[in-house]
This record gives sequence, C-alpha cells and structure tokens, in this order.
Amino acid sequence: MSDAYEPYMPLLNRIKSEGKCLDGGILKVDSFVNHQLDPLLMMDLAKEFVKRFADKHIDKVITIESSGIAPAILVGLLLKKPVVFAKKKKPSTMNDMYETEVFSFTKNRSYSVCCSKEFINKDENILFIDDFLANGNAAKGIIDLVNLGGAKICGMGFIVEKSFQKGGTILRNLGYQVESLVIIDALDDCKITFKA
Amino acid sequence: MSDAYEPYMPLLNRIKSEGKCLDGGILKVDSFVNHQLDPLLMMDLAKEFVKRFADKHIDKVITIESSGIAPAILVGLLLKKPVVFAKKKKPSTMNDMYETEVFSFTKNRSYSVCCSKEFINKDENILFIDDFLANGNAAKGIIDLVNLGGAKICGMGFIVEKSFQKGGTILRNLGYQVESLVIIDALDDCKITFKA
Repeated sequence: MSDAYEPYMPLLNRIKSEGKCLDGGILKVDSFVNHQLDPLLMMDLAKEFVKRFADKHIDKVITIESSGIAPAILVGLLLKKPVVFAKKKKPSTMNDMYETEVFSFTKNRSYSVCCSKEFINKDENILFIDDFLANGNAAKGIIDLVNLGGAKICGMGFIVEKSFQKGGTILRNLGYQVESLVIIDALDDCKITFKA
Repeated sequence: MSDAYEPYMPLLNRIKSEGKCLDGGILKVDSFVNHQLDPLLMMDLAKEFVKRFADKHIDKVITIESSGIAPAILVGLLLKKPVVFAKKKKPSTMNDMYETEVFSFTKNRSYSVCCSKEFINKDENILFIDDFLANGNAAKGIIDLVNLGGAKICGMGFIVEKSFQKGGTILRNLGYQVESLVIIDALDDCKITFKA
C-alpha cells in the first residue's frame, strides 16, 4: 500500500478540457462521469482501480446508486466478482436489510442507505467504488452497512476527491487505503486547482 | 428487424435458478440484475443487445437511473458510444434540461425524469436500454425526452419484459423495435411462467 498520490493523467486531462467549475465550489463533470458517461474512459478508470488494489484480496465490489454503478460494474467485470449497489430508498420488495443514515451536504438533508442482508456476508473483503469523495458521508454509510454484515472494506476507490473537504482525511485516518484518481485542492473563483 | 421472440437462454436459466416470484406478481432478480449484479452475465446480456440491434445506426445509448446503468454502460462500451442516464430528480447543478413526468405503478406515484439538453442532440439515433419493461411508462418518459431534443429512439432493449403488463404491446404498436431478452407471461401463485 502506497499513500503517495499519483493522479491518473488521462482523467486529469479530461477534467481540464471538459470539466466545469460552478459557483459554490461545484465541479461539473457530467459530460463524461455522472450524467453522460464515456464508457471507454470509464473502463480505463476501472483498470486503474484494479491496478491500485492489485495487492488486495477482493471478494466483492460495493457502490451506492446511481453515479457509482458505472465504474463499479466495470471494476467487477475486470475482477470477475459480484457488484452490489446500496440503495437510497428501501425497495418495496426488500425486507431483510441493513440500513443506515447518510447526511448529504450537497442536498442538506439525510437519506437512508440500505442493502439486503443476503449480499453482505461475514468475513467478505469488499472494495468500495464511488464517483466523488467530499465529506465522506456516503463512504461512512457504506462502512456501516458492511460492518453490520460482519464483512470488511478492503479499500476505497474514488474517481475524484475534493481535498478541501474532510472525507479523505477521515477515511485515511481510519486506516483505509483510499485511492483517488484525481484530487482537487480548490474550486475557488470558478477555477479548478489540481493537487500537484 | 425481426419481431420473433427468442429468449436469451443463459438469462432464462439464471432466472429459473435464482429468480424468485413474490406475492403480487413481483419478480425478484436482485441477486444478479438489480441490487447485486453479476458483471459477467451483464456483459453477456450487453453483447446480446448489440447483436440484436446490429442493423441499426446508433449514436448514443440512453437509460434511466439506477438499474439501467449497468447494462447500458456495457452496451456503450461495446459500441464505443456515449451513455446518458436520465435522472429521477433534478440535480442542483443542472439548469438547462428536458423534463417529463413518469407514473410508476410499482410505487403508485409520479416522478420527474430529466436530462440535460446538452446530451440529447438533434437527429441523433439513440438506443434505450433498461432492466424491466412492464407498463412502459419509463420508456414513454424517455421517448418524450429524446423527442424534446429532436433526436429519435432507434430501438429499445430490456433485460426482462412482463407480457401481462401492457408496455411491450404499446411500444411495438408505436413502431419501435423492442428486444426483450426474456419475456415472462405470468407471475401467478408465486410461479414464474416464461413465454415459450
């Protein structure tokens, strides 16, 4: 495990050319990451995640709907392992499930995240994949669900991390291997500042 | 374009072995399609979709969050074309968008489906991919969004169609090529009856 940050340059360059910074420190990458998706770039990101977690034993990939599903399914495809996506609403067809609360700063409200008990098994090593790491609340929700099932998170991969929010620090201090393909240090004055 | 139904047998067999039929005509395939995903099966389904729409010119793939994203990204990967997922809630970062209402019988309420205007362009040929076809309301919402952008739906692919609900008939009567990998004729008495 290495804690040295190495940006994944094809993604960094794509953010430079197509990403937009909106008022209020919002990074808009919805032309290739979270509304329209570029499947070829997404597959390259998945390969990079697999490379960065190559020393881990991984039984399963977990993500959270919706924007994490695309990178997670591709990581699962490469690893030939099942992918679970935690749901933000309890489905009417799901009874026996783990559930936790996640606070979203973007939306300024709490929401429930849940996962059927069937799909988190004792002692499984589970890799969490998501699009963004900001305050880390979604990640903490996933840690809760995985712990409730007696499994453990063996790593966390994010497409983009915002280092000016506290999620990365919290998760690394908890001892997790956190791999962010690009880290952004600031989004002030509608300008994207990448971590060097 | 052929209207003859041919089940995709690896999926049909998987539904036979792992699918569950719940009270109220609910098919539960969440161990491999829409909660936990089997990426290898999903890739096989994507290949089958690509084969069935091989005579179409396709510029883009569209789906609707969340369960359509996994099959759609894999179809997009095989076609090397962008994938757009319509959102069920208007994101705070999205202003210029097409929006329509969809009624969900499962949830017994209407919800809004929207897509940024940037990602539906005039005269594009767009393939719609989703997990389930029941009453076809989500599909009709997608048709609305695509039409609002002056593009057109060149085909619709569903993992599972329920023929005892009216979506398939409606969409085929509208002239769309609808390809369902497995069609289920009945879910009575907690028994799955496949279309022959």
